[in-house]
Amino acid sequence: MDDEKIMALAFAEAKKGIGLTWQNPVVGAVICKDNQILATGYHHQFGQHHAEIDALSHLQTLKEAEGATMYVTMEPCSHFGKTPPCAKKLVAVGIKKVIIGQRDPNPLVAGKGINILKDHGISVKVLNTTGELNEAYNFFYRHHRPLVTLKYAMSLDGKLNYQAGQRTRLTGDAAFADSQTLRIANQAILVGEKTLTVDDPKLTVRTANLPFPPIRIGLVNNADKLPLSAQLFQQEAPVWLLTRTKSTRQWPKFVRVFQDQTWTPQTIVEFLAKQGIQSLLVEGGSHVLAAFTAADLADRLQVYLAPLILGGGGLPAVFGKAASTIEKFKPIKVRQLGSDVVITAGRD
Amino acid sequence: MDDEKIMALAFAEAKKGIGLTWQNPVVGAVICKDNQILATGYHHQFGQHHAEIDALSHLQTLKEAEGATMYVTMEPCSHFGKTPPCAKKLVAVGIKKVIIGQRDPNPLVAGKGINILKDHGISVKVLNTTGELNEAYNFFYRHHRPLVTLKYAMSLDGKLNYQAGQRTRLTGDAAFADSQTLRIANQAILVGEKTLTVDDPKLTVRTANLPFPPIRIGLVNNADKLPLSAQLFQQEAPVWLLTRTKSTRQWPKFVRVFQDQTWTPQTIVEFLAKQGIQSLLVEGGSHVLAAFTAADLADRLQVYLAPLILGGGGLPAVFGKAASTIEKFKPIKVRQLGSDVVITAGRD
Repeated sequence: MDDEKIMALAFAEAKKGIGLTWQNPVVGAVICKDNQILATGYHHQFGQHHAEIDALSHLQTLKEAEGATMYVTMEPCSHFGKTPPCAKKLVAVGIKKVIIGQRDPNPLVAGKGINILKDHGISVKVLNTTGELNEAYNFFYRHHRPLVTLKYAMSLDGKLNYQAGQRTRLTGDAAFADSQTLRIANQAILVGEKTLTVDDPKLTVRTANLPFPPIRIGLVNNADKLPLSAQLFQQEAPVWLLTRTKSTRQWPKFVRVFQDQTWTPQTIVEFLAKQGIQSLLVEGGSHVLAAFTAADLADRLQVYLAPLILGGGGLPAVFGKAASTIEKFKPIKVRQLGSDVVITAGRD
Repeated sequence: MDDEKIMALAFAEAKKGIGLTWQNPVVGAVICKDNQILATGYHHQFGQHHAEIDALSHLQTLKEAEGATMYVTMEPCSHFGKTPPCAKKLVAVGIKKVIIGQRDPNPLVAGKGINILKDHGISVKVLNTTGELNEAYNFFYRHHRPLVTLKYAMSLDGKLNYQAGQRTRLTGDAAFADSQTLRIANQAILVGEKTLTVDDPKLTVRTANLPFPPIRIGLVNNADKLPLSAQLFQQEAPVWLLTRTKSTRQWPKFVRVFQDQTWTPQTIVEFLAKQGIQSLLVEGGSHVLAAFTAADLADRLQVYLAPLILGGGGLPAVFGKAASTIEKFKPIKVRQLGSDVVITAGRD
């Protein structure tokens, strides 16, 4: 069997952790010896065993690891975090060769894991492939800020609703399910004040029970003016309110308030980076979407198109100050979901 | 061979006439005898032989037609138009059986062709299939007005241009070529006054040399205020100006002027129906597109989406009075052309 094929199996293992590993990458591992697969494993959940350790635990005895090859989708860690360093464990159990998908861009690891292995005479090969996993994780360590995705649903003439100030559900059930998957893939979801008051959204993930649900962020002028009866406050998933004026209200425990007179897309993204948030989904409204675009902070787009023409009464999907430079998004991917169309686009 | 397979060949023949038959349907024909295909033919061009006659002309001798079966995609005509009635010709040459794709909805024929055949002892079978051809022709005779297609190109946030009053080419070469094919499929193209003055379009088909190019229609308040230097007047393809105030100007021969103080989408479509125009492509601008939608005259949509976000400065694709009833378009088809996406939608 060739390395790519076994690594594909490791990537399939890694995928089992999607939505569960929070700010950790999803990682999969496969242990081979004498052309046989002895065990597989993956990182199940933030705070639990890493993939390598999980795979080792599936061997009949740890003795089997001696002289074996470990395939792991991301460089083994070198630091004590929630768990001891994996690289040292691989040395200890007698792994002979390690085939790695991608290096870990986290500066805590970044080559140090590989060095530990090599220093102990383990042969290391890096395939330089991400398996299209951990997009936000990799982006975060490359750009030092969260990957920002703008998401909106609009009619075929680019309107968000029938009439400004009115909530309109444009798309069908399949598109709704897809947008839930998008929320699962993000560590934070942000909406503006108008969307909060007009749409009164829950901003929760209804299709899965997540150990680390995305943080629901509301960008508001005065947090204390939000009604406590809002949907946002009816479920105990984390809420962060970015408010421009000071809050004196007594908030429920799951609500945190951050005050800054001049919240802008740029300062928001810097703030989230400091909090370790690797991915941000901006769900509206029009002005917030325009502001993130104008600030050159639209890395990905997910646009749901409903088969309607709404004409002039509705709010344009992106409204406000035009983009200073014109964004060209590539590549662009298209899917049909029921009667709707979903366009996904991005930039490097 | 079964009838459907031979009819598929006849449809393939018919397609050769697309863009050339003007207000006639495209029609193909196949002559069979003793399980052999003896000849094929199609309607090459408006004013030329019909498909049946073209096929007969490809027999080695007309004698071969005796006792043969004629497959023809549309009911043979029964009237003297530019050519003598085909049904009588089939009788005269001794055709024994006629297999027909669809009945001719044109009231000049509408069953009369079939009756002539039957009255002369010819066996007739109608498959009731259009082969997805002659959509506008069939629509026109069912609804007594042209099939109206709205076409526009917009950014991923539903904008027509960077800034109102400015022409912006958003889409790429493949989308341009596709929009030319759409023009070929229509007998008339309409734009409003603002589009004429801001964009100064040619409205011609650049990718083919058509015997009957689409009529270029400008909807204006005062035709005499249009500059004669406009691109519209630089090529001798037909131009119709629908003007609200009377024109006293001396126009070039290829320009016709029709005055009516109250041109509306409804009166325009009635006027075009009287002129025998079976298909109308509305290419903008925003207000004209909105007016046709509000008048419930949007039968088909073709939307080109460019991978851009333009923000708030641009003109929304459809702008003005909102649709009184919300149009749900189905089915919806999606294609990718280069970096662009094309959505085609319609209703019955």
